[in-house]
Amino acid sequence: MKAVVHVMLKPGVLDPQGEAVRHALGSLGFGGVEGVRQGKVIELDLAGSDAEAAEVEVKQMCEKLLANTVIESYRIEIA
Amino acid sequence: MKAVVHVMLKPGVLDPQGEAVRHALGSLGFGGVEGVRQGKVIELDLAGSDAEAAEVEVKQMCEKLLANTVIESYRIEIA
Repeated sequence: MKAVVHVMLKPGVLDPQGEAVRHALGSLGFGGVEGVRQGKVIELDLAGSDAEAAEVEVKQMCEKLLANTVIESYRIEIA
Repeated sequence: MKAVVHVMLKPGVLDPQGEAVRHALGSLGFGGVEGVRQGKVIELDLAGSDAEAAEVEVKQMCEKLLANTVIESYRIEIA
């Protein structure tokens, strides 16, 4: 079974990486970019086949390791 | 208008970051994780309102900056 976790900075948290990308795009001539936010996408191959148990476990993984819940939010998709 | 770009390593390309996450999850007691792949998700706020023109422009952004097309593949969503 596959789980996909999207981790993004919470709104209002400064995103220096996104700002750097925006400036770089501007210097490459892409003018119409008003904002850039960059996050992580993590694909997990899980051994089990129980989607609900997997969601609970992946949520624990996010809380413990995959996301810094002080400044980041996460979204879990079980496929 | 918002565009979301998902950048992942191509299949077959070694993912040391994913491996590190897998080991860390194992040491935290999450045993059933067979594989981890980590990539980037980039949210772009674009000034225009023409979705097709935006897709073409974002594709150029990916080719020039957002993705290393030798080892990474990308997927664009225009919202």
